[in-house]
Amino acid sequence: MFYTTDDIVVVVDIVGTLVFAISGALAAGEKRFDLMGVAIIAFVTAVGGGTIRDLLIGSHPVGWMQSYHYVVITIIGVLLVFFLHKQLQRFRTSFFLFDAIGLGTFAIAGMEKALSYNINPGYAILCGMISGCFGGLIRDVLCNEIPLIFRKEVYALPALAGASAYLGLDYLGVIPEVSFPITIVLVILFRVFAVRYNWQLPQIRMD
Amino acid sequence: MFYTTDDIVVVVDIVGTLVFAISGALAAGEKRFDLMGVAIIAFVTAVGGGTIRDLLIGSHPVGWMQSYHYVVITIIGVLLVFFLHKQLQRFRTSFFLFDAIGLGTFAIAGMEKALSYNINPGYAILCGMISGCFGGLIRDVLCNEIPLIFRKEVYALPALAGASAYLGLDYLGVIPEVSFPITIVLVILFRVFAVRYNWQLPQIRMD
Amino acid sequence: MFYTTDDIVVVVDIVGTLVFAISGALAAGEKRFDLMGVAIIAFVTAVGGGTIRDLLIGSHPVGWMQSYHYVVITIIGVLLVFFLHKQLQRFRTSFFLFDAIGLGTFAIAGMEKALSYNINPGYAILCGMISGCFGGLIRDVLCNEIPLIFRKEVYALPALAGASAYLGLDYLGVIPEVSFPITIVLVILFRVFAVRYNWQLPQIRMD
Repeated sequence: MFYTTDDIVVVVDIVGTLVFAISGALAAGEKRFDLMGVAIIAFVTAVGGGTIRDLLIGSHPVGWMQSYHYVVITIIGVLLVFFLHKQLQRFRTSFFLFDAIGLGTFAIAGMEKALSYNINPGYAILCGMISGCFGGLIRDVLCNEIPLIFRKEVYALPALAGASAYLGLDYLGVIPEVSFPITIVLVILFRVFAVRYNWQLPQIRMD
Repeated sequence: MFYTTDDIVVVVDIVGTLVFAISGALAAGEKRFDLMGVAIIAFVTAVGGGTIRDLLIGSHPVGWMQSYHYVVITIIGVLLVFFLHKQLQRFRTSFFLFDAIGLGTFAIAGMEKALSYNINPGYAILCGMISGCFGGLIRDVLCNEIPLIFRKEVYALPALAGASAYLGLDYLGVIPEVSFPITIVLVILFRVFAVRYNWQLPQIRMD
Repeated sequence: MFYTTDDIVVVVDIVGTLVFAISGALAAGEKRFDLMGVAIIAFVTAVGGGTIRDLLIGSHPVGWMQSYHYVVITIIGVLLVFFLHKQLQRFRTSFFLFDAIGLGTFAIAGMEKALSYNINPGYAILCGMISGCFGGLIRDVLCNEIPLIFRKEVYALPALAGASAYLGLDYLGVIPEVSFPITIVLVILFRVFAVRYNWQLPQIRMD
């Protein structure tokens, strides 16, 4: 192999954190929060999912406290939104892809961290989903909005599918250097099809 | 005794979890969340109170991660709401009673877990209330509603009373096999009277 | 010195807790919550920031469980609001000052607790800000309002500045008995100027 999974995970973790921070900053900007509020929402969106996972599995201090790069990336994201948010609109498609990459990476990394804390496989997959999705959930709660992932987009399911696929390939003996890119592509395709063909999970007809 | 408290607690814990999951699924269904959103809200409503208690007292990983039955019961609750929510309406009175049973059981079990972590008695009682009530609190926050327990129903107080009564009976030397059913009946009666006679705790007159 | 920092911190911690509890009780009263809801919001506002800090750094059980004085002070605050909320209006300026004192104290004490758990200095300062501000944040989320600190008032920044200044003075060798009052005065002045001259942090122009 010309690369190790660790190399990719580091790069993709940075990309995911930046995209999540930008998504938080944009949501907070639309709510007309001030710069401090924007920064707090951006940071919480970027690290919130992993924070909840760490609290649930009992990993403390929470992961982001062990490195300054989450704060630095958040500040970069906030500055990008502050100065270049109009230009950012042009890269919508790239963002969508980066967001799917971040979702998949956070789901896989979150699941692996849970496994390393002896959480059983089913709940480790759930921890992966939480790592990928719950940052956006907290963002929406703090912005006083109904969480997006509950309604409009098939978002939690691809995270669940990605974490499950990665774990399944691992059981089949596939090495991470192979299963990681496969899983990420799976999550991206899931998201692309869901949005392009307007997939909707069934709702409960209450009337 | 023909039964032990452990036997009852296991049965009643299952009943409480199912009723709480159904209450979460119904709330999410009314908000037109998709099936994944409904499942997440149902699960969070069922295990949320105990999760907050576990985080506060430092029990990790959180309790529900040690058994799959919470996920299984949640899925059953979601399927019941999805396929039979109209029929469920007919069992409103039963639900109300089961909910009161769940509230009482969660309050007692939550208090006992806190005591086993050397939390002092007053805060252990508070942990009991949190175990019983805060799942519904998180449900309402995630549904972007003002939490029900703060306004309409005398709900937190019966939990507080139940946990206190159980602890008081324990200090008086009453064995759990006796004090448990007494306490649960007390919580049920408190809830029945509160709803039937429209009890309201005083509000602050701000004008 | 005629006093030690410990003496002041104890006194100021009580003042801060009371003021935060009153601010929570007033917000809940305006939402027409019942007395139990008012008490829960008051308690959560008073101890919420420190609770989140304790969960993040892995200090458990959370700090307030080690002493009953937080509950007692909360009950006093709720009773004050219940019986005397009209008279409390007259002390608005005092409240504003006490709130700033509480903000500064919680920020400094929160940072020091984080440092004692080997959190690095940058994140310890962030923990100070969380201790000072996030109680009000939870209050607003539970009241189904957009958090005030994200919009209207320069509130998180003075907490950040206070924690940073205190740590900076500590590195310069200034003893706590001197740096503590200096920092608190700094936070108060920051808040006074921010409100009097209507300071606003920049917003992102999204249109």
